[in-house]
Amino acid sequence: MYSHCTAGGWILGNTIDGTQAEFVRIPFADTSLYPVPEGVDLEAMAMLSDILPTGFECGVLKGKVEPGSKVAIVGAGPIGLAALLTAKFYSPAEIIMIDLDDHRLEVAKRLAATATVNSTDGKAVETIMRMTGQTGVDTAIEAVGVPATFELCENIVAPGGTIANIGVHGTKVSLHLEYLWDRNITITTRLVDTVSTPMLLSILVSRKLDPKVLITHRFKLDSILDAYETFARAAGTRALKVIIES
Amino acid sequence: MYSHCTAGGWILGNTIDGTQAEFVRIPFADTSLYPVPEGVDLEAMAMLSDILPTGFECGVLKGKVEPGSKVAIVGAGPIGLAALLTAKFYSPAEIIMIDLDDHRLEVAKRLAATATVNSTDGKAVETIMRMTGQTGVDTAIEAVGVPATFELCENIVAPGGTIANIGVHGTKVSLHLEYLWDRNITITTRLVDTVSTPMLLSILVSRKLDPKVLITHRFKLDSILDAYETFARAAGTRALKVIIES
Amino acid sequence: MYSHCTAGGWILGNTIDGTQAEFVRIPFADTSLYPVPEGVDLEAMAMLSDILPTGFECGVLKGKVEPGSKVAIVGAGPIGLAALLTAKFYSPAEIIMIDLDDHRLEVAKRLAATATVNSTDGKAVETIMRMTGQTGVDTAIEAVGVPATFELCENIVAPGGTIANIGVHGTKVSLHLEYLWDRNITITTRLVDTVSTPMLLSILVSRKLDPKVLITHRFKLDSILDAYETFARAAGTRALKVIIES
Amino acid sequence: MYSHCTAGGWILGNTIDGTQAEFVRIPFADTSLYPVPEGVDLEAMAMLSDILPTGFECGVLKGKVEPGSKVAIVGAGPIGLAALLTAKFYSPAEIIMIDLDDHRLEVAKRLAATATVNSTDGKAVETIMRMTGQTGVDTAIEAVGVPATFELCENIVAPGGTIANIGVHGTKVSLHLEYLWDRNITITTRLVDTVSTPMLLSILVSRKLDPKVLITHRFKLDSILDAYETFARAAGTRALKVIIES
Repeated sequence: MYSHCTAGGWILGNTIDGTQAEFVRIPFADTSLYPVPEGVDLEAMAMLSDILPTGFECGVLKGKVEPGSKVAIVGAGPIGLAALLTAKFYSPAEIIMIDLDDHRLEVAKRLAATATVNSTDGKAVETIMRMTGQTGVDTAIEAVGVPATFELCENIVAPGGTIANIGVHGTKVSLHLEYLWDRNITITTRLVDTVSTPMLLSILVSRKLDPKVLITHRFKLDSILDAYETFARAAGTRALKVIIES
Repeated sequence: MYSHCTAGGWILGNTIDGTQAEFVRIPFADTSLYPVPEGVDLEAMAMLSDILPTGFECGVLKGKVEPGSKVAIVGAGPIGLAALLTAKFYSPAEIIMIDLDDHRLEVAKRLAATATVNSTDGKAVETIMRMTGQTGVDTAIEAVGVPATFELCENIVAPGGTIANIGVHGTKVSLHLEYLWDRNITITTRLVDTVSTPMLLSILVSRKLDPKVLITHRFKLDSILDAYETFARAAGTRALKVIIES
Repeated sequence: MYSHCTAGGWILGNTIDGTQAEFVRIPFADTSLYPVPEGVDLEAMAMLSDILPTGFECGVLKGKVEPGSKVAIVGAGPIGLAALLTAKFYSPAEIIMIDLDDHRLEVAKRLAATATVNSTDGKAVETIMRMTGQTGVDTAIEAVGVPATFELCENIVAPGGTIANIGVHGTKVSLHLEYLWDRNITITTRLVDTVSTPMLLSILVSRKLDPKVLITHRFKLDSILDAYETFARAAGTRALKVIIES
Repeated sequence: MYSHCTAGGWILGNTIDGTQAEFVRIPFADTSLYPVPEGVDLEAMAMLSDILPTGFECGVLKGKVEPGSKVAIVGAGPIGLAALLTAKFYSPAEIIMIDLDDHRLEVAKRLAATATVNSTDGKAVETIMRMTGQTGVDTAIEAVGVPATFELCENIVAPGGTIANIGVHGTKVSLHLEYLWDRNITITTRLVDTVSTPMLLSILVSRKLDPKVLITHRFKLDSILDAYETFARAAGTRALKVIIES
């Protein structure tokens, strides 16, 4: 459980400066770096540094996505889309993406979501339950981080299913044990460990994954402030991930 | 997942009459009955009908108790004690029982709890964190069913740990994702399936388990109303499980 | 473990007559039949009766195929190809098919094997080790059933890998524990259980699997003897699976 | 899989000198050393350096020993007895020890084996099958390393069971796939990884394990050659583990 290493863990950009620099000293480098495989696109590798393992480990692995299962991903931002891309490794029968933004849902559709639900109308629960024959989903992945989206997951998870939380929450949520106590569900939280990096690298090399589809903008280093602003106004700029080119 | 069988599941005593009768028709009997092994005490078998598999499946198995791990069980009633008895199958290093009733904690101690905590003083979290070197427990089993006890579990579960809910809850609880979102925890709920019955029978036959320690009172059939009253006033009568003798 | 049910198990076509009849009594039907989902092709369903679950359960599930892993399947007959089709559910990086028959290897290639090896030259081990950077494969699936093919698997399995046997063997094989004892490998055998039928049905309905690619010939019921002969001379007729149409 | 680390792995006493010295340089020490917990007996710790994790990881964990299951351990030498001591963590219903030496079987009995079988008469298979109601054992642990003992395991493993090999084999063995191919068995090999060291330390601290029962002889450092000779003639000296005192 690297992410909870009491001497290491999440250090870069958290307890010390991050990596936007020409040279960087990496703590515990002998157990935390991987060589870049030959012939791999460096922009694709950038997607492997954080977003892909986050969606994969916290959402897909914790959520136990499996062949033929039904998956809902609440939040079609970069992390939710990373969960979508990596959920497909396990060939679920359905991947339903839920968001308030039609543009993001279109992106999800293009990345092979089997269905999309705009939850603006407040009827997402009814819609998803109808889509799943009133059973709900085997895996509900929370990729937003607010009480409403977590409770949505509670309402659509099938008996025996899993709610895999990825969202960074700032406040408590209501857990409705009065109807969940007997439903054999599992709820998980996780800080990304990057233990899946070797697996993701192998998939990348085999060309079964193209994470570059998440890149919407590219900036030169001297426009980095524009990059941050573009990312900050994602709804307007339709930014998913931005690349700083050297 | 027998407990969520859409045609079967929890029928007896729930959607049809229970089994306090001379003859009983058992729905789906060809896939739900086990022969009583020779030489096994029938009172011990009575403990296997519900309480042992509930503590074992919903608490111990879901809670992934394992050798050398630290376990806390909140609630030292019959179900919590059943979780205690069956947690020992996996040789955890510590089993801490928490309750408001000193008598029940004494019983827990007799059944080999390694420590007991009376939570009346409101300091259970501090006490348990101190007992575990400020790390918390690997498995927190909730065997009460009210918000306060569930939140206690949230406060004592270690990174990577599991909260296994057994309690029947009548209201929602607060889930503090604002500090749990990154702690790699798992929360589980389950309605007992009795899939562990063959395993429990085998352990019973091997004399590695004596569930009769949970029996505190015995009544003749014509005193059955006294039995119910004794069980209803458990705090006063110190009743755990009562047996109706024929 | 349905396949080892002491009262049931493999009955049809084994201890009693099979199902080539207008009406058939199915033993233990209340726990062994599945409704055909609406809109599903019946020929595809026929592939689900035996060949798909055999390749999937005995090969892919026992072999723990996972995203990014390397898989070798020894034997490109119908069962090996069923393992190939279902291995893809887990997005392995490589699926290498090994056989003596170039035609079958071409079929494998068409069904998305990432590489094929004709082992006629006796150099399959060297070839596969070279293909895998001298590490070997994570999963070696034996789908032939003779000592030579099983020993091939022993020689190409990587440390930590699994040999999943599907083949029906008529004689013992040599297990080279003198070099395997310390290599953390796992060898599995299994009689198909069909526990994966619900999963396979769900995948079929979601159109992520087209098992009809295994069907090479169709016969009317009154030509059933031709069908058997065609299947018996598979090397010459290039038969994989034959369908009897009503 | 530390034991197959391509840069590290089994180095001490294998590819470089061992640790019988006043000072030792440990390769990869920052990821391979554990602090000795306070108050723990150093002789008990010596048992944790190799023998306990070997029996536990290669035998008990790989063999999936679980509550109520039936276990046979072939070989009652130090490794087999270490498997016995650690198998008890999971409360199996039966642990049958098999050996040719009555003295070692007596030791096994004292360490709570539920039954012992002297296999000198060549009837061990019949005896064990009779003891298990003709079903065989769920876990057969091979702790000798010769063909005869491995084949014994093949003959006593129940459908669905596991053969966990610990023995260091010098020659190939016969694997009887002609009757094992359809029995859903698993065979495992493993070089000890010592990944279980934190768990074993925790159990040791909790006093649920006393590995010092394996120590039969103690020698001063200047009698170390006697110690080696005593260990070499174990059948005569009844040595299990010998301790060199400083």
